[in-house]
Amino acid sequence: MKVSRRSAVEPFHAMDVLAEATRRRSAGNPVISMAVGQPAYPAPAAALSAARQALEDGRIGYTEALGLNDLRRGIAAHYRARHGVDVDPARIAVTTGSSAGFNLAFLTLFDVGDRVAIARPGYPAYRNILAALGIETIEIEVSAENGFTMTPESLEAAQSVFGKLSGVLLASPANPTGTVTDRAHLKALADYCSASDIAFISDEIYHGLTFSGEETTALELTSDVVVINSFSKYYCMTGWRIGWMVLPKDVVRPIERLSQSLYISAPEISQLAALAALGAHEELDVHREAYRRNRDLLAARLPEIGFTIASPMDGAFYAYVDVGRFTNDSMAFARRMLAEIDVAATPGHDFDPIGGHRTMRFSFAGAYEQMVEATDRIAAWLK
Amino acid sequence: MKVSRRSAVEPFHAMDVLAEATRRRSAGNPVISMAVGQPAYPAPAAALSAARQALEDGRIGYTEALGLNDLRRGIAAHYRARHGVDVDPARIAVTTGSSAGFNLAFLTLFDVGDRVAIARPGYPAYRNILAALGIETIEIEVSAENGFTMTPESLEAAQSVFGKLSGVLLASPANPTGTVTDRAHLKALADYCSASDIAFISDEIYHGLTFSGEETTALELTSDVVVINSFSKYYCMTGWRIGWMVLPKDVVRPIERLSQSLYISAPEISQLAALAALGAHEELDVHREAYRRNRDLLAARLPEIGFTIASPMDGAFYAYVDVGRFTNDSMAFARRMLAEIDVAATPGHDFDPIGGHRTMRFSFAGAYEQMVEATDRIAAWLK
Repeated sequence: MKVSRRSAVEPFHAMDVLAEATRRRSAGNPVISMAVGQPAYPAPAAALSAARQALEDGRIGYTEALGLNDLRRGIAAHYRARHGVDVDPARIAVTTGSSAGFNLAFLTLFDVGDRVAIARPGYPAYRNILAALGIETIEIEVSAENGFTMTPESLEAAQSVFGKLSGVLLASPANPTGTVTDRAHLKALADYCSASDIAFISDEIYHGLTFSGEETTALELTSDVVVINSFSKYYCMTGWRIGWMVLPKDVVRPIERLSQSLYISAPEISQLAALAALGAHEELDVHREAYRRNRDLLAARLPEIGFTIASPMDGAFYAYVDVGRFTNDSMAFARRMLAEIDVAATPGHDFDPIGGHRTMRFSFAGAYEQMVEATDRIAAWLK
Repeated sequence: MKVSRRSAVEPFHAMDVLAEATRRRSAGNPVISMAVGQPAYPAPAAALSAARQALEDGRIGYTEALGLNDLRRGIAAHYRARHGVDVDPARIAVTTGSSAGFNLAFLTLFDVGDRVAIARPGYPAYRNILAALGIETIEIEVSAENGFTMTPESLEAAQSVFGKLSGVLLASPANPTGTVTDRAHLKALADYCSASDIAFISDEIYHGLTFSGEETTALELTSDVVVINSFSKYYCMTGWRIGWMVLPKDVVRPIERLSQSLYISAPEISQLAALAALGAHEELDVHREAYRRNRDLLAARLPEIGFTIASPMDGAFYAYVDVGRFTNDSMAFARRMLAEIDVAATPGHDFDPIGGHRTMRFSFAGAYEQMVEATDRIAAWLK
C-alpha cells in the first residue's frame, strides 16, 4: 500500500528511544530512562481516588466534545486562584492531552502553506504536526544571546527573510531549554503578534515546574491568545492523556466542531481524575522540590562528566547538554549509551535539526537515586 | 483571532445534540438520549478490575506509541481465536479510539487533493476529518438497490465521474444503516481496490454486534487493507478512548512516526483495561442480546409511530428511519423533540447531506425501559 508524501515526518526520536528502552527492560536489563518527560510519581491521591470512584459508579462514557462542565469550571477557578485572572469556562476546551491541543490549534488557525514560528531548539512534535498538516515551520534560533527565547526582533527578522508569519508558538517554561520567559518579554511578544495579525499560541504545559523566576500565563496579558496546557507534567498524569486549551471566544466553536469529529471527547475517567488533581498543589509541590534536587544534582554532575549545560534549566525538568566533546553524532551516541550502559536519553536532533548532532536531553523527572546511578554509569562509561 | 478555511467543517450534529441533552439533564430534565452510540453498560468487570489494579500499582505513564506489547499480542490472539487469522502483533497499532485510527490512516495514506469514497449515508466524522485534511470525499449512495453497501460497480461509476480514487472506506456493520456486508461482497471490494491501486480501509468498529448474517474481518481476505477497530462499542468502553488498527507491514512505521508526534500514546489505563476486556465475551454477548431486544422493539414500534425503517439494522445499534411524514427539516425536528419531550436523537443530516433532511438516527444501545419510554413519548407527542 502506498503512503502519502505528508506522512514522511521525522520520527519523535525520544519515543523511539522509549520503545527500545522498554524492549530492553522487558528483556531484564536495568534500564534507567531519562528519555521522556515522565514523572516518577503517580497521579495525585485525590485523582486516583476520583478515578476509583468513577470505576465504582460504572459508566465511563463520551462527554461533550469540549469536556465536562465541572472540569471546565474547575480550570477557570484555577486561573482565578493562581493568577488572579477571570476566564469564562465557555472559553475552555478539555483535550486529549496537549497533543490534541496542538493538533486542534494548528488545524483551526492555519491553512496549508501558512508559516508558524517556533524556537530552535524546541519540542519536536510541533514541527512534525505542522509538517503533517502542510504548515511551514519557521525556526527561530534561541541562544544565550537572546535569552533563549523568541523576541519581537527575532520575529521581525524572520518575517523579512521568510515572509508573513501566520502564527507564533512559544513555550514557557520551554522544552528542552528550561527557559522561563518573563512577563515583560511575554507581553512584548503578545503585543507584537496582536499588532501584526499573528496568532499567538502560548504552550504552558510546564507551568507549576518553575525553579527560579516568576511564572506568567499569557492570559494575564491578553485574551487574544491560544493557551495550551496539560495535566501530564506538574500533575503527573502523562498516561491519562488529558489537557486543556483556553481560547479566544471566536475560536471556541471551530475548535469544538473539529474536536467532535477528530476526538469525540477526552477520556472521561481522566477528566474526572483531572478535576480532583486541580486541588492537589500541596502534594505536587513536594514533587517539584524533588525535581529541583535532581536538577541541582545534574547541573553539578553533568559538567563534571564533560557534558556542558547548554541552557537555563529554570523550569520544566530537562537538562539540555552539549556532548560535542565526545561525539559529533548524538543519535549514535544515544543508541550506544542505551545499548552499553542501559541509560536512555534523547538525541538533540529531536529538538534541533541543525545543532542537535552535538546535544542531548536528559529528563530529570525520575527518582533521585536514578539520577545518581545514571550519572555514575555515564562517568564510568566515558572513562 | 482569524480561523483557517479548513476549520469550516460541519459540526458532528450528534455531539451538539449530546451537549444540549447534557445541559437539559443537568437542569433536572428527564432526558432520554438516543443520540450517540453510548452503550448502557459499563466496561466488562475484568476491565474495571484491571483499571483498579493499575490505579493501585501507581504509575500510569506514556507507553510506546504503537501501544503496550501485551495488548498488541492480545489483539492478535483475538483474531486467531475468533477469525482463524494469523496477524503479526507488529502489524497492530493501538490507538486513542478509532477516532485516532481514522485521522492517522487518512494522514498516512492520502495527500491533499486525493479522493476517498465512503457510503452515503455514513458516519459523519469520516467526511469531516477528510475535509479538515484537504481530502476530497466521494459519497457513494447506498440503498436497497445495491444492498446498502458499496460495490465494485458503484466505485467504477464514481471513478468515471470524479476521477481516480485513492481510497475506499467501508464500514461493516455500518453506521447508521446497520448493513453487514457479506464475505463475497467484501472480497469483491478488496480485490477491486487491490487491482486498482486504491487503499482499502475496513471500519470494523461494530464487530461483535451483528444480529443476522456472518461477520467477516477483511483480514480473512487480504493483508492489503487497513483495518480500524475499537473497544468503544461491543466492549462498552466509549469513554476510555481506546481502539486499534491492523496495518499492511509497510504502513506500520509511517503510522508509528505520526502517532509519536500527534498522540504520544493511547491512555495507559485504558490499554490495560482493554487487554482484560478481550476475554469478556460471555458478559458482552449478553449485552448484545439486550441490544437485539431493543432492536426488535424499535423495528416494531417506530413504524407504528410513522417512522419508516430506512435500512437493514443487521448490525451495530442504530435505527435509521424516514421521518418525512412529519417533517422536511430533521434538524429542527430533532431540536423540538428534545426541547418538548426530552428525547434526544440525531438528525439525518449528519449521515446524509442530501437526503438527511427527512431521516433520523436512533441509537438503541441504551436500556430497554428507555426505548419503551422514548417511543411512548414520541407516539404521544406526534398525535
